[in-house]
Amino acid sequence: MSVTIREIAEKTGVSITAISQILNGKGERFSETTKNRVLKAAKDMAYKPNFFAKNMITNHTNTIGMVVPEVTDAFFSQMVKGAEDYLNRHDYMIMLCNSSNDKEREDRYVEELLHRAVDGLIIASPNILASEVFERLQEKKKPYILLDRQRNEQKEGRIAVDDFEGGYMATKHLHKLGHTKIGIIISDNSFYNVFERYEGYLACMKEAGITVSKDWIVSGNQTMQGGFLAGEKLLESGVTAVFATNDLMAVGLYRFLFDKGVKIPEDLSVIGFDDIELSEFMVPPLTTVRQPIYEIGAVAAEFLLRKIAYPEEKMNNRLLDLTLIERGSTTKI
Amino acid sequence: MSVTIREIAEKTGVSITAISQILNGKGERFSETTKNRVLKAAKDMAYKPNFFAKNMITNHTNTIGMVVPEVTDAFFSQMVKGAEDYLNRHDYMIMLCNSSNDKEREDRYVEELLHRAVDGLIIASPNILASEVFERLQEKKKPYILLDRQRNEQKEGRIAVDDFEGGYMATKHLHKLGHTKIGIIISDNSFYNVFERYEGYLACMKEAGITVSKDWIVSGNQTMQGGFLAGEKLLESGVTAVFATNDLMAVGLYRFLFDKGVKIPEDLSVIGFDDIELSEFMVPPLTTVRQPIYEIGAVAAEFLLRKIAYPEEKMNNRLLDLTLIERGSTTKI
Repeated sequence: MSVTIREIAEKTGVSITAISQILNGKGERFSETTKNRVLKAAKDMAYKPNFFAKNMITNHTNTIGMVVPEVTDAFFSQMVKGAEDYLNRHDYMIMLCNSSNDKEREDRYVEELLHRAVDGLIIASPNILASEVFERLQEKKKPYILLDRQRNEQKEGRIAVDDFEGGYMATKHLHKLGHTKIGIIISDNSFYNVFERYEGYLACMKEAGITVSKDWIVSGNQTMQGGFLAGEKLLESGVTAVFATNDLMAVGLYRFLFDKGVKIPEDLSVIGFDDIELSEFMVPPLTTVRQPIYEIGAVAAEFLLRKIAYPEEKMNNRLLDLTLIERGSTTKI
Repeated sequence: MSVTIREIAEKTGVSITAISQILNGKGERFSETTKNRVLKAAKDMAYKPNFFAKNMITNHTNTIGMVVPEVTDAFFSQMVKGAEDYLNRHDYMIMLCNSSNDKEREDRYVEELLHRAVDGLIIASPNILASEVFERLQEKKKPYILLDRQRNEQKEGRIAVDDFEGGYMATKHLHKLGHTKIGIIISDNSFYNVFERYEGYLACMKEAGITVSKDWIVSGNQTMQGGFLAGEKLLESGVTAVFATNDLMAVGLYRFLFDKGVKIPEDLSVIGFDDIELSEFMVPPLTTVRQPIYEIGAVAAEFLLRKIAYPEEKMNNRLLDLTLIERGSTTKI
């Protein structure tokens, strides 16, 4: 029923080998004219590559495995989206695995993906990977990108933002508005990036000559619930502004303040971190430090596909910018 | 390095075949004593099954493929979570594929998952699947569950809620509070379930003897942005209450109303549908019709594992309940 490469060869007069290489994106050595003729014929004849045949020719499955800590978290789902859009545009599919922040499950998923012959992996992880997993990745010679908050040592393919700078930026914004009693919600988990944001906060406070009271620092789960629960202590501490180290916690804090009749930003300024899609829809819209989350996913995909195409080439590193997004949740005191 | 089945056999005196069957959950024919002895020895000796060996014995990969229309949507990510928690408890892993509501991509992902030898599939889809995909599923004899808003014909394994009833319930709640001018945001896409909710709304209005004005019905994208954009027409129409056919649209509507200085629920009552995690954190907390989203995913996983274990058995169908969750976004007029 379906059109074969042989039929395209008959129609175009180009060899089967050449056609299969061109259709599989390995046709660099052919002229543009030949390539266009083949691609046009394939399109006109509605050619669909046979998965296994294609696989045999290129030894590629055109599938990328991606492991994320929590797919229900708006942050990671946006990252996945960035990777996916890039991969889909390049005719790659993505197999997604959710480790639920569980180290063991993460290691297992990486193994599973290797067994399933993906062409490469994007591993977003809060953990240090097991050395066996690293060994397995080397052994299988699979290109991979670690989006791991800088916890594993990486010589190439590092994609990062400067979390310290981001924490500094958020605190500075509040301080510029006249706030001196500035609270922070940090993580009850040892997330490296949140710790860096906290360090940025401390540096900014020190620079401003403000002695940080212990009460201003509340730790919580990096979720809406976590932000909600942190509200009580923060209110008691007498701060006039709060830096929530991610936007989800700001959502929960909003709800707590609503229950207590505390108005944002009149009674309390709130700044978040991430700029998830929800943030601009919050009431009032949330001032936050935007991470280019979508772009992080897209760059990871870009680096990975390049590594798959040119395995010997060293991968770049990229430091992406953070931006302060001023909305309605912060005001002058 | 790692412990083998042979070593467990030496230690326990049980045959290798028996041990492999017991360790793979196929040990029904052995006594409890034997089973316990083997399981204890495996545990004591820290036995870890070799993936391929296990695969050869059981012909199972202990992996389920799941296709969802949009993983960034809180509704689907909660459904995934339900399936995943159930599957993980039963030592299955999940490979997730995001079709972005694209029918072609959806078909392709199903094919990919079949190639990758998953044990079964959960396909959440707003579309009618291509007949080739159905054929392929039959041919490969792969158990699957369709969470498809009732669009494909299914003789077994149907998991559903009564969307008509849900739409009726939401409208009735507003009407009981004294509202007669009740607006609705429907979908600009032909989603069957949203259409059913709309029918429930119409039935309730008819029963109450209210003539629905055309202006009260606004269609929009089932996203925050869609709800935001629907706000203008609804405000102009003079309604006193709005039924957003999903919670995300309610989030967008909240933001629009905030910009216009319209207070919820004093000036306008809002009711949603779904009860995503965010809904109770909204300001004010959203009154909504709760779908057991997590449970839908969990039941799908349960049905699927049962079908994998007992392929000849017919699957059950299950109709899950909707519940009205009254929070702070609706009030008497």
